[in-house]
Amino acid sequence: MKIFDELESNVRSYCRSFPTVFTEARWSTLIDERGREYIDFLSGAGTLNYGHNNPILKQALLEYIESDGVVHGLDMATQAKQRFLETLDRVILRPRKLDYKVQFTGPTGANAVEAALKIARNAKGRSNVVSFTNGFHGVTLGAVSATANSHYRDATGLPGMGVSFAPYDGYMGPDVDTSEYLAQVLADGSSGVDLPAAVIVETVQGEGGVNVASFEWLRKIEAVCRKHDVLLIVDDIQAGCGRTGSFFSFEKAGVSPDVVTLSKSLSGYGLPFSVVLMKPELDLWKPGEHNGTFRGHNLAFVTATAALEEYWRTADFSGDVERKGRAVRNALEEMAQADQRLSVRGRGMMQGLDCTDGELASQISRNAFDRGLVIETSGADGQVVKCLMPLTISDETLAKGLRILKASVEDALSDSGVEDLEMAGVS
Amino acid sequence: MKIFDELESNVRSYCRSFPTVFTEARWSTLIDERGREYIDFLSGAGTLNYGHNNPILKQALLEYIESDGVVHGLDMATQAKQRFLETLDRVILRPRKLDYKVQFTGPTGANAVEAALKIARNAKGRSNVVSFTNGFHGVTLGAVSATANSHYRDATGLPGMGVSFAPYDGYMGPDVDTSEYLAQVLADGSSGVDLPAAVIVETVQGEGGVNVASFEWLRKIEAVCRKHDVLLIVDDIQAGCGRTGSFFSFEKAGVSPDVVTLSKSLSGYGLPFSVVLMKPELDLWKPGEHNGTFRGHNLAFVTATAALEEYWRTADFSGDVERKGRAVRNALEEMAQADQRLSVRGRGMMQGLDCTDGELASQISRNAFDRGLVIETSGADGQVVKCLMPLTISDETLAKGLRILKASVEDALSDSGVEDLEMAGVS
Amino acid sequence: MKIFDELESNVRSYCRSFPTVFTEARWSTLIDERGREYIDFLSGAGTLNYGHNNPILKQALLEYIESDGVVHGLDMATQAKQRFLETLDRVILRPRKLDYKVQFTGPTGANAVEAALKIARNAKGRSNVVSFTNGFHGVTLGAVSATANSHYRDATGLPGMGVSFAPYDGYMGPDVDTSEYLAQVLADGSSGVDLPAAVIVETVQGEGGVNVASFEWLRKIEAVCRKHDVLLIVDDIQAGCGRTGSFFSFEKAGVSPDVVTLSKSLSGYGLPFSVVLMKPELDLWKPGEHNGTFRGHNLAFVTATAALEEYWRTADFSGDVERKGRAVRNALEEMAQADQRLSVRGRGMMQGLDCTDGELASQISRNAFDRGLVIETSGADGQVVKCLMPLTISDETLAKGLRILKASVEDALSDSGVEDLEMAGVS
Amino acid sequence: MKIFDELESNVRSYCRSFPTVFTEARWSTLIDERGREYIDFLSGAGTLNYGHNNPILKQALLEYIESDGVVHGLDMATQAKQRFLETLDRVILRPRKLDYKVQFTGPTGANAVEAALKIARNAKGRSNVVSFTNGFHGVTLGAVSATANSHYRDATGLPGMGVSFAPYDGYMGPDVDTSEYLAQVLADGSSGVDLPAAVIVETVQGEGGVNVASFEWLRKIEAVCRKHDVLLIVDDIQAGCGRTGSFFSFEKAGVSPDVVTLSKSLSGYGLPFSVVLMKPELDLWKPGEHNGTFRGHNLAFVTATAALEEYWRTADFSGDVERKGRAVRNALEEMAQADQRLSVRGRGMMQGLDCTDGELASQISRNAFDRGLVIETSGADGQVVKCLMPLTISDETLAKGLRILKASVEDALSDSGVEDLEMAGVS
Repeated sequence: MKIFDELESNVRSYCRSFPTVFTEARWSTLIDERGREYIDFLSGAGTLNYGHNNPILKQALLEYIESDGVVHGLDMATQAKQRFLETLDRVILRPRKLDYKVQFTGPTGANAVEAALKIARNAKGRSNVVSFTNGFHGVTLGAVSATANSHYRDATGLPGMGVSFAPYDGYMGPDVDTSEYLAQVLADGSSGVDLPAAVIVETVQGEGGVNVASFEWLRKIEAVCRKHDVLLIVDDIQAGCGRTGSFFSFEKAGVSPDVVTLSKSLSGYGLPFSVVLMKPELDLWKPGEHNGTFRGHNLAFVTATAALEEYWRTADFSGDVERKGRAVRNALEEMAQADQRLSVRGRGMMQGLDCTDGELASQISRNAFDRGLVIETSGADGQVVKCLMPLTISDETLAKGLRILKASVEDALSDSGVEDLEMAGVS
Repeated sequence: MKIFDELESNVRSYCRSFPTVFTEARWSTLIDERGREYIDFLSGAGTLNYGHNNPILKQALLEYIESDGVVHGLDMATQAKQRFLETLDRVILRPRKLDYKVQFTGPTGANAVEAALKIARNAKGRSNVVSFTNGFHGVTLGAVSATANSHYRDATGLPGMGVSFAPYDGYMGPDVDTSEYLAQVLADGSSGVDLPAAVIVETVQGEGGVNVASFEWLRKIEAVCRKHDVLLIVDDIQAGCGRTGSFFSFEKAGVSPDVVTLSKSLSGYGLPFSVVLMKPELDLWKPGEHNGTFRGHNLAFVTATAALEEYWRTADFSGDVERKGRAVRNALEEMAQADQRLSVRGRGMMQGLDCTDGELASQISRNAFDRGLVIETSGADGQVVKCLMPLTISDETLAKGLRILKASVEDALSDSGVEDLEMAGVS
Repeated sequence: MKIFDELESNVRSYCRSFPTVFTEARWSTLIDERGREYIDFLSGAGTLNYGHNNPILKQALLEYIESDGVVHGLDMATQAKQRFLETLDRVILRPRKLDYKVQFTGPTGANAVEAALKIARNAKGRSNVVSFTNGFHGVTLGAVSATANSHYRDATGLPGMGVSFAPYDGYMGPDVDTSEYLAQVLADGSSGVDLPAAVIVETVQGEGGVNVASFEWLRKIEAVCRKHDVLLIVDDIQAGCGRTGSFFSFEKAGVSPDVVTLSKSLSGYGLPFSVVLMKPELDLWKPGEHNGTFRGHNLAFVTATAALEEYWRTADFSGDVERKGRAVRNALEEMAQADQRLSVRGRGMMQGLDCTDGELASQISRNAFDRGLVIETSGADGQVVKCLMPLTISDETLAKGLRILKASVEDALSDSGVEDLEMAGVS
Repeated sequence: MKIFDELESNVRSYCRSFPTVFTEARWSTLIDERGREYIDFLSGAGTLNYGHNNPILKQALLEYIESDGVVHGLDMATQAKQRFLETLDRVILRPRKLDYKVQFTGPTGANAVEAALKIARNAKGRSNVVSFTNGFHGVTLGAVSATANSHYRDATGLPGMGVSFAPYDGYMGPDVDTSEYLAQVLADGSSGVDLPAAVIVETVQGEGGVNVASFEWLRKIEAVCRKHDVLLIVDDIQAGCGRTGSFFSFEKAGVSPDVVTLSKSLSGYGLPFSVVLMKPELDLWKPGEHNGTFRGHNLAFVTATAALEEYWRTADFSGDVERKGRAVRNALEEMAQADQRLSVRGRGMMQGLDCTDGELASQISRNAFDRGLVIETSGADGQVVKCLMPLTISDETLAKGLRILKASVEDALSDSGVEDLEMAGVS
C-alpha cells in the first residue's frame, strides 16, 4: 500500500481501518489482491444495498455501455433518464401516492442536501434551518453546517451559519420528549432559535450512531413543522432505498416530508447519483440555478432503473429485508447479553451494537476484519458497531458474518476484560 | 419530452436549449431518439475532452466491469485506485516536477473546491479567500460563495461569507492592470479586504465567458500571494485536462499553485470524478475530516488511467490540441469580421465568440442546434458563444462544425439586422 | 406631542406607553408638562437605581461642570477618571477580592457586550458563544446575535452568527435541570453546538421577563464552563449596581465570572456609561482595538464616583434594598392571590408579576399610568409587569406605588373578567 | 498615571500618546494636573467643534440640571427632546429643504451606524452593503464589518459578513475614476458583489487619513445608487456638524442621502449623543425594534439645542469656519514645502498633513505634545497628521497652534534627516 501512503492525502480513512488492496467484489463478498475474501457488513456505508456488482444491474450496465448510450449529458434529456423518471414514478411514487418533482442534483448526498436547503430557504424566505444532535448531512459548507459532529464542522475554518441544533429523539434521556423542546422553542419568539425555513431529519441516524427516531416522535416533529409553516426535510440518503424495510424510511411513520434527499443506494451499483424530491409547489427553481457537471450520470440512471424494476415492483424484497433485519437484531441482542456495556438499536437492516466505549467498538471492528468481516463503527465517539450488510445478502452468508461478529465481540470483551483487570492491578 | 416537463424540476436547463431526447453518442457526435446526429461543441461543458464513449476507455471500462472489479469502495484501497495513482504520478506529476499529494474528494468539481477552501483556511488560520469577477467554482455553499454570478449566489438564501472579489484580468479595461489592484488591497491593512488564506483563480474562465488571464497577470497574482503568505489555488476543472493544450492550464504561465482542483474530463469518460492536488506541507487533514460516499469511484479510476496512458505519455496529443485550437481560433476570427459587436478570445481549444449581446449569442446557439450543432453560451449575460468541442475531434468534423457555426452566426446577424431595422422603423 | 409624531421615527416606544411630555424628576417622581406627578417604578429600565437627579450626585456634577472640568477626553487620562478608578477599586473590587482590569467601552450596554464577546473570542480563538433563551444583551449586531428575542433579531436583516442558544434555568419546566443540557451538549462533540469561547448569562433576566436563575444553577453553569475551558461572562447591566441587593448580582451565588459587563445605573445619574471588567489574563487588547468617541464621559465618572462613595462604602444600602425588596415581593404575592394566572418572581428590588397574558399585563400598565404610576411590562409576550423602582425610594412612596399597582391589577382583572364573560356570551 | 497602568485595560490608547492627567478645559485649551496648558487640535476627534465647555452651552446645561429637568428618560417624551426636535427642524432641516425623520439611537456613532444599516437592509430586503477602503464607521459588529481597517476588524474573532468594499475616491491613483468601478460591479450580475441595500460613505474620511471625496465623485456614487435602487448613507459623524464648513458635509456636493448618521459634535458639549436621519419612506421601524437605555440623554438635548440656536441660525459661523479652514490649509501647505514626502488634503477645518511615513507623523505628534499642542495621526499607517481644532478657536490661538505644529514638523524632519543619514552610514 506504499503508493497510498506516499501520494494520497492524510484525509484517507477507511483504508486505515481495512488495510488491504481490494480487487474484486460480488454480492456480499470483497476480495483483496491476495485472494482473501471478506464478508461485507459495510456496503459502502449503505451504498450497496443490492450487493456488489449485482449481476442483474451489471447486465443492464454492460449493454448500455456497449451500445454507446449517452454516458454524460449534463442535464440534457436522454433516453436513460426518461426511463428512470418513468420507472421511479410508476414503481415508487404513484403506488405510495407521493406527488413529488424530481431534481437531479450533483451526484453526492451532500449536493442533494445543499439543494434541499436552498429550496427551503428560498420557499420560506428564512435563513435558519433546524437540524439535530448527531445528525450527519455531508461536509460541503451548507451541508456541514447542518451536520452535528465537530470533527467535520471544525474543518471548514468558518463559523456555522443558518442552522440551529435541537435534541434528537432520546438525546435527553428516556424521560424527556425532545419534540416538545422543539415545539417550545419554535412557539417562543424569545427562544433565540429563529423561525426556521425547515427542519432536516434522518429517521435513523447512520453516521450519528444508529439512533432511531420513534414514529411518534417523527409525527410530532412533523406536527410542529405544520403548526409553524416550516418545511420537513427527510434526509433519506442512508436510511432510504430499502435499508429499513420500506423504500423510504418514513413510510411507516406516516409522515409526509416536503422534501426528501436520496443518494447512496439509489443507483444500486455504487455509482454516484443523488436526487431531491420536493412537493410541486416548492419547485421554485429558475433554470440552471443549481447546476453541476455530473447531474446526468446516465450509467446510474440505467442501473437505478434496473434496481427499481427488479426489487420494488412487489413487496417481496421489502418483506425479506424485514425478515433478515429481525435475524440481525436477534443475533445482536444475543451478543449484547455478554456485557452490560452493550446494547442494540436500529430498524430493518440498519442495526447497531452500542458498546458505550469507542475503543471497544473499534477493537470489535479490528477483530472482525482479521476474521474476514468488514464492519465499521459510527457515533460521536465511534462507540457503535454498525451493521449495514447488503440487503440481498444470502441467509448463509449473513449467518456466517454474524458468527464472525459474535466471535469478534467475545474476543474484544475478553481482551478488554483482561485490560480492565490489568489496569485494576496497576492502579 | 412529456415526462421531463411533468416530473423533473424547473431547475433543468440544458434540455431547454437542446430540446430533444438523446440516445447514443460516439466521439464528437450525439444522436437523438429520432436518429438525428449532432456535432457536439459542448462536450459536457468540458467533461468529454476525449470524446463521447471513447473506444479505448470504453474497452478498459467494459473489461473492469465484466471482471467484477470493485466498483464502490468508499476510500478503501483498491487496485484500480492504485493504478490511477501510479499513472498520475508517472505520466503527469513527475515529468512536470510537481510534488503534490492527491485527495479524492466527492466526485464533483464543487466538492473539490470545497475541500480546497478548507485546506487553505485551515493551513493559514484565516477565513477570507479572494476570488475573481466572473469566476465560477460550483454551487454548494462554500463553492458558490467564491462564484461571482448572482444567478447562483442568490439561490442560497444566505449572505456570502468568507470570500472577497477582485477584478479579473481585463475587467477594468485594457489600461488597468488589475493585479495591481489586488496587490494594493492586500498590502493595505485598511482596504477592507481581510488578508486571505488563498486566492482562487481560473486561468481561463469558462462559465464566466471565456475570459483569458495573461500569463504575466497570473505570475503577478502568484507574486502577490507569495509576498503575503497567501496560497494560490488554481481551479483547473474546466481549463485543465488538456483543454488549453497542456495537461494543466497553468503550465505555460510558469506559476506553481499550492492547490489545484481537477474534475470534468479527469475520468475521460464523463464519469463523476474529482481530485484536489496540494503541496505536501498543506496536507494537514485528519483522517476522514472531509469524507463522502463516492470518493472512490473505481470505474472512473479505470477510465482516467486509460486516458492518461493513451493521451499524455507523449507530447503528440498536446500538440494536436494546439493545432486544432488555432484552427478554431482562425475560424472564429473570420466570423467576427462580419460584425463589430463580435470578438474572439480563448486559449487552446477553449475559444469564445463574444457577441456583446446575450440575445444574439443565444440566437446563434439556437440556429446551430437547428443545423445539427450543439454549442452553448456563457458569460454573465450569456453573451459568449463557447467552443468546447472534444479535443479528439477529427479535422473533418471540426471543419463541418465550424461551417455550421459560421452559417448560424450569419443567420443570426442577418436576423438581428432585420430586427434592428424593424425596431428602428417602429420607434 | 405633535412634534414627536411628525419628526421622530416610528421606532420610538416608551413614549407610546406613557404618552405625556415629562419635564422634571426628583428621586422616585416624574413630573409632566401639565404638572402631574408620577411615581416611577421603571427607573429608566434600571438606570436610576439611586433615583432621579439624586441631590448628592447632582451636587458633584454641578461643581464639576462649573469648574470647567474636562467633559470629553476620548480615553485620555483625566482626574475624574482617575478618581473613578481609584474609588471602584477601593469601594467595590478590593473588598470583594475581585481582581479585574477595567475597560471603558462606548457608553452603552450593547457596546460593553460587544467588547466582552470580542475578548472571549480572541482569548479562546473560538467563534461560538452560548447565550440563553430570553436573554437580552443589546441590539448592535454582535450583541443582538446573543439576544434571544426575534423582535430584535429580525431587524438586522442578517442571519445570526457565532451564538448558540441554550435553555435558561426553568425554561423546560421545573423538572428539567437545564444546566445538565448545557453540560451534555458541550461534552458531546456531536451535539452541533461548537465549543464556545464563552457563556454569557444574566443572573436575572430583566427584559426577558424577570426570570431568575438559582444560585445552584449558576454554579453549575460555571462548573460546565470551567470543565471545558469556556469563559463565563455575566451581563450585569440590569441586575448589577445593587438592583438585587449586592453590588454585583452574582456575589451571593458564589460564582467568579471571567468577564462582567456593567452599565445602566453605573453612572448613577442616568448618564451614558459602561465598563467591562475582565480577569487580567484576558486583557489581550492591543491599544485602540476597541475604540469609540464617548469612552471617556467624565461627567459620568464624577457621578459614578459620588454614587460609589455614598452608597457602597458600608453594607447599609445593600441591606435596605433587601428589606424593600421583600416588601415589594410580599405586596406582589398578595396581588397574585387574586387570579390563578398571576405569579411572582424576582430577586431584591427586581420583581415581576407574571400575568401569563400579555394583554392583561399591558392593561395593568395602562391602568397604573392613568393612576400616576409608571411601570413597564417585559418578557417575550410582554406578559410580566416588572417592578424596577429606584432603590432609594422612600417607604412611603413605595407603599403608595404598590397600592396603585394593586388597584391597577384589580381593575384589569375585573375588566378582563368582564371581557371573558362577554366573549363567552358572544361565542 | 499609576492607577491607569494598573487598572485600566491595555485597550487604552490616547492616554499613551498624550501621557498626562488632564483636569480642566476651556474652548481650545486643555490643562493638566501640573497646570500645564495645551492647545487642542484634536477636539475629541471632532467631538468638540464648539470648544471645550463652551460657556453658552454650559449655561444651558447648568440651568437644566439645577432645575431637576429629566436627565434620563429612555425614549419617553420630554420637554428637552421636544425642544431639540423643534430646533433641529427649524434651524437645520427646513432651511435646507431636507425631509427626514429623526431616530434617537444609542448615543454612540457606532450605534447610529448599526441602525442605519438595519434600516437599509430591511427597506431593501438585501443583506449586502458597500463600504469603502479606509472607511471607519465604528467597532461594534455591524459597524466594524463596514470599517476597512484590519486593526479593528481582526478583533472581532468573526469573519465579516454583509459588506463589500469598493475603492474610495483616489484609491487607485489619480487616473482611475473609482466611481466607475462601483458602477461596473453593480451593473454586472457576475461581479461577485451582491446588489447592496446601501452604499455607506464618508465625504471626508477622518480616521482613514483625511481622504477627501470630490463633489463630482459623490454625485456619481449617488447616481450609481439611484440607478440600482440602492440607498445612499452618508456617515457624517466626523465630517458633519460644521466641520467642513456647512452643517452637513454633503450640502455643497448636491447629493441627497437617504440616510444620515450624526454624532460626535451633535451635543456640542462632548456628551454622548447620536441620531439617524432617514427619508420618511424608510421609517419602517416597528416600535422598540432598535432600542437602548441611553437614547434619551436629555442633557445632550439641552446642549445640542443651545448649539444649534447659537451657531446655525445664520451663515456667520459657517463662513468663519471656511475662513479659518483656509488659514489652516495655507499654513499646512507651507509646512509641506519643506519635504517632498509631505502633502496636504482636507476640507474646511478638517485638514491633514500626509507624511507618507507613519513614524514621521508620529514624531510630529510627539514633538507637538512636548511643545503644548495636542494633535493626532490618522490613516492606515498613522501617516497623516490630522488637524481637528475646535471650529470656535480664536485666530490667535489658531495661529499659535499652527506655529507649534510647524516647529514640530521642522524638528521631525531634521531628526528624520539625521536618522536617514545615520542609516545610510550604517548600511
